[in-house]
Amino acid sequence: MSARAVSRYPVPQLADLPDDIQARFLEVQEKAGFVPNVFITLAHRPDEFRAFFAYHDALMLKEGNLSKAEREMIVVATSGANDCLYCIVAHGAILRIYAKDPLVADQLAVNYRKADITPRQKAMLAFGLKVALESNTIGDDDFAALRAHGFSDEDAWDIGAIAAFFALSNRMANMIAMRPNDEFFTMGRIPKSR
Amino acid sequence: MSARAVSRYPVPQLADLPDDIQARFLEVQEKAGFVPNVFITLAHRPDEFRAFFAYHDALMLKEGNLSKAEREMIVVATSGANDCLYCIVAHGAILRIYAKDPLVADQLAVNYRKADITPRQKAMLAFGLKVALESNTIGDDDFAALRAHGFSDEDAWDIGAIAAFFALSNRMANMIAMRPNDEFFTMGRIPKSR
Amino acid sequence: MSARAVSRYPVPQLADLPDDIQARFLEVQEKAGFVPNVFITLAHRPDEFRAFFAYHDALMLKEGNLSKAEREMIVVATSGANDCLYCIVAHGAILRIYAKDPLVADQLAVNYRKADITPRQKAMLAFGLKVALESNTIGDDDFAALRAHGFSDEDAWDIGAIAAFFALSNRMANMIAMRPNDEFFTMGRIPKSR
Amino acid sequence: MSARAVSRYPVPQLADLPDDIQARFLEVQEKAGFVPNVFITLAHRPDEFRAFFAYHDALMLKEGNLSKAEREMIVVATSGANDCLYCIVAHGAILRIYAKDPLVADQLAVNYRKADITPRQKAMLAFGLKVALESNTIGDDDFAALRAHGFSDEDAWDIGAIAAFFALSNRMANMIAMRPNDEFFTMGRIPKSR
Amino acid sequence: MSARAVSRYPVPQLADLPDDIQARFLEVQEKAGFVPNVFITLAHRPDEFRAFFAYHDALMLKEGNLSKAEREMIVVATSGANDCLYCIVAHGAILRIYAKDPLVADQLAVNYRKADITPRQKAMLAFGLKVALESNTIGDDDFAALRAHGFSDEDAWDIGAIAAFFALSNRMANMIAMRPNDEFFTMGRIPKSR
Amino acid sequence: MSARAVSRYPVPQLADLPDDIQARFLEVQEKAGFVPNVFITLAHRPDEFRAFFAYHDALMLKEGNLSKAEREMIVVATSGANDCLYCIVAHGAILRIYAKDPLVADQLAVNYRKADITPRQKAMLAFGLKVALESNTIGDDDFAALRAHGFSDEDAWDIGAIAAFFALSNRMANMIAMRPNDEFFTMGRIPKSR
Repeated sequence: MSARAVSRYPVPQLADLPDDIQARFLEVQEKAGFVPNVFITLAHRPDEFRAFFAYHDALMLKEGNLSKAEREMIVVATSGANDCLYCIVAHGAILRIYAKDPLVADQLAVNYRKADITPRQKAMLAFGLKVALESNTIGDDDFAALRAHGFSDEDAWDIGAIAAFFALSNRMANMIAMRPNDEFFTMGRIPKSR
Repeated sequence: MSARAVSRYPVPQLADLPDDIQARFLEVQEKAGFVPNVFITLAHRPDEFRAFFAYHDALMLKEGNLSKAEREMIVVATSGANDCLYCIVAHGAILRIYAKDPLVADQLAVNYRKADITPRQKAMLAFGLKVALESNTIGDDDFAALRAHGFSDEDAWDIGAIAAFFALSNRMANMIAMRPNDEFFTMGRIPKSR
Repeated sequence: MSARAVSRYPVPQLADLPDDIQARFLEVQEKAGFVPNVFITLAHRPDEFRAFFAYHDALMLKEGNLSKAEREMIVVATSGANDCLYCIVAHGAILRIYAKDPLVADQLAVNYRKADITPRQKAMLAFGLKVALESNTIGDDDFAALRAHGFSDEDAWDIGAIAAFFALSNRMANMIAMRPNDEFFTMGRIPKSR
Repeated sequence: MSARAVSRYPVPQLADLPDDIQARFLEVQEKAGFVPNVFITLAHRPDEFRAFFAYHDALMLKEGNLSKAEREMIVVATSGANDCLYCIVAHGAILRIYAKDPLVADQLAVNYRKADITPRQKAMLAFGLKVALESNTIGDDDFAALRAHGFSDEDAWDIGAIAAFFALSNRMANMIAMRPNDEFFTMGRIPKSR
Repeated sequence: MSARAVSRYPVPQLADLPDDIQARFLEVQEKAGFVPNVFITLAHRPDEFRAFFAYHDALMLKEGNLSKAEREMIVVATSGANDCLYCIVAHGAILRIYAKDPLVADQLAVNYRKADITPRQKAMLAFGLKVALESNTIGDDDFAALRAHGFSDEDAWDIGAIAAFFALSNRMANMIAMRPNDEFFTMGRIPKSR
Repeated sequence: MSARAVSRYPVPQLADLPDDIQARFLEVQEKAGFVPNVFITLAHRPDEFRAFFAYHDALMLKEGNLSKAEREMIVVATSGANDCLYCIVAHGAILRIYAKDPLVADQLAVNYRKADITPRQKAMLAFGLKVALESNTIGDDDFAALRAHGFSDEDAWDIGAIAAFFALSNRMANMIAMRPNDEFFTMGRIPKSR
């Protein structure tokens, strides 16, 4: 639909990429039906690409008490606070699908206080946003507030580490002007069951 | 000297760690004479540890136009802006050694405008701090300002990516209350040649 | 779909409303297919309701050099800066329809610098955001910047007055927790021509 | 006394104005002894003028639990936070007269915490300033704090709506450089009874 | 008129004060007709009192290119930025008298950009406010901007030192809740010549 | 080591200074082994110099419940918040010596929450930083918080007045680009007893 640049930097041809990165492209193409621009644009630097996705997978795919939808909630809310267009739009789409909820992503990108989520999830996002925006003031009280909602300290690490990783991701996307694929804007907006 | 905790989280025993992480501990112990707490504390999560250091090495050890001292300058200045005690103290020590300058780290942690560095380095840090603090406003003018000092767009990526990676690192260190090893506070303060 | 409250305050029954407000409800119902919650929630105070929509219409429906899509751009961008969920979602929908562009509203709600708009429209939004966020610093230079893009001083009034009116609107919506109608989230996302 | 411009925009001649606006000018002239510049400057756009004053009157002249002086307190305190010279000076004068207190307006324009007002009035202004400055964080606790001082939820709407309306008014005055009439600076400074 | 406390701290009886401080009280009483509360409240600590007024006099009474009115302009504008009620009200009164202008103090306390002052005075206040609010960013350009208006570097020191001294004064007044004498609110509001 | 300027302004020759200032130079030279640049640079204005050091001595040398190390803690923490290179480096050195602790100054310059100090000292610094950064919000609760840690209201004055005095000092140092003596960077880093 659009011929606009997806990055300030050159984007590599698939054939020019190392085999492992080609394989990752094909895998995500298979699964999503297209290759998200975060893959295409970060492949400009293969070593950083590999570390980025290893870190991403370690946080987003691991076992734990946070559901996949909850992890994406942290991504969307903190990316909203950092004004990162790519991450809000792309992870908003993923969140809509995981949560089977066409509204929650747009709500979280603006103001988690007004979102259709549980008080426990609001506490989770309050902690994530504090890590994102004023991590120097994190103290015992913040961990206690999570425990009051049943989160363990390992859950706290998960929440904070996701917020920290997207602090990196948001800054990279903003710096290189990473453009969200058009597909993301509409994915998951109509619930399957309707 | 100090018996204070190095992290809010448990720190693993060397013998309990996976072999590759044990090897990394021994390597840095060999080189520095002690194991920096960033290794000890992040080893609590081996997969994240591996991704963290892979990313770190991809940015800090790669070839490029930025000297090793200049990369550490970006770390110290942006960590100063994020009030991250661990990164200021640990990377300040490394910067003093690389730059063979006992003063520059303390200067940069406070205010790069008052540091004994070149105008080109000040432009580098202005860009890095913009990525750290308001990446949503990065635009063509910011890249042009770097080019005016002889930086290529690949150099710009290096600068911005280091600032972005330490946005992650600073938030993790602040969240887990990572304590700098006492050794870092004094390393490199007396120039060898005096 | 949702049974969630649309306001912290009671919402009136249609039959209990004054005739002129009933008429307005029916008119918008006719046109949009539903009654947006801004009508339903503000009708709690009929006199304020009348003044609110008289002001809205004076700014948004008048003749002038700004297109209807451009006026909605100002609404979406400044409501994004004020974190107003209702106005972002409702006016984002209207903007998608006026602009016949399924992407631009989500782009503007996050960062107008990254949106698919013209340099002239970026200048328009820079002025609108300055009125929204730091009107005390508006000076001759800001008007000159608009003139450089062909905007007259009357256009400047239009831009600034829309930003000022939605400063009011955003605060009311945030205070009463005005909920966007579910319909708005998906309106205009699929261009008619596809 | 001063020949300085009262607005960046042309100000209409009385005879050129629509009859209803002429009537409003004469009414206020009768009452105040002069025509405040907010009338003269906003008359540049008759439709917006009418909506502005309809809104103003709906909030400031209606019945309710807030006294007239208390409504002006909200105007002065929030206009102080927005650095709006016209509103501070003009509504400061009105407040001095309504409150029969020559000091309170200057106090509130700077810092309501140091003003000679009741704890209930301080709670009212804390709510008004939150609507003015960070309405996205308004929550149930803020309404509870008002109730603890005897304010109903309808009173809360009054307080918040006045703060919201002057968010608009302050931005318009700042944008067009609305100049306070010289008369306002000294009105009400000497209590009648002295 | 008011029986309100002038300070959070005890205020000494004149007879209990050291002779030099008693003499200063009598001198200012003679000149102003009353003793400003800054004398009464700071006399709680005689040594600090002496240093405070020695510093004040060194900056405000010395010879130089800045007129007495201009020095008070710096005080009022920076005290406005620091929300210091005492300094705005007391020095606003002094400014009205020195400048023979009943309006300028209220203008400067809110927004120097809207005040009836010269472009040279606006440049002076821009520098003073930068020292007051973000002195860490002061650079050569700021001194050049002053020189462009005919200010020498010694004038720059005067401007910056006054802003710096009132950074101290504003914080002391705010901390101890120093109350302005009622007299200050009305002094100089009616020009003598009218 | 460095031939860099110690101030934007000329620095006087010792012989050209008034006798009392010469004596002060000799006294500090005797005690410290060198003359700190705050003496050398502020001597450009003898009257201000005298008032500055009279104020400094009244606060830092007086009797009271705060130890000398605690007073320097306030200086270092508030100078950190104001990004004042001179005060952080020079008073950091003095703090290391008074506290016989090579680490605490670097900790406090970044984040007092992470420093090896007592809860009582953290309360002291929270108050000092509030005076430094948002003195307009100081209220009864802040004094109560100090009392809960055993501080009297006279101690509160000491804490706040030190924060206020260094608000002045930090701004002067930043404005004139006062350079810390190289000696300060390394003083007190190796505990005597090791």
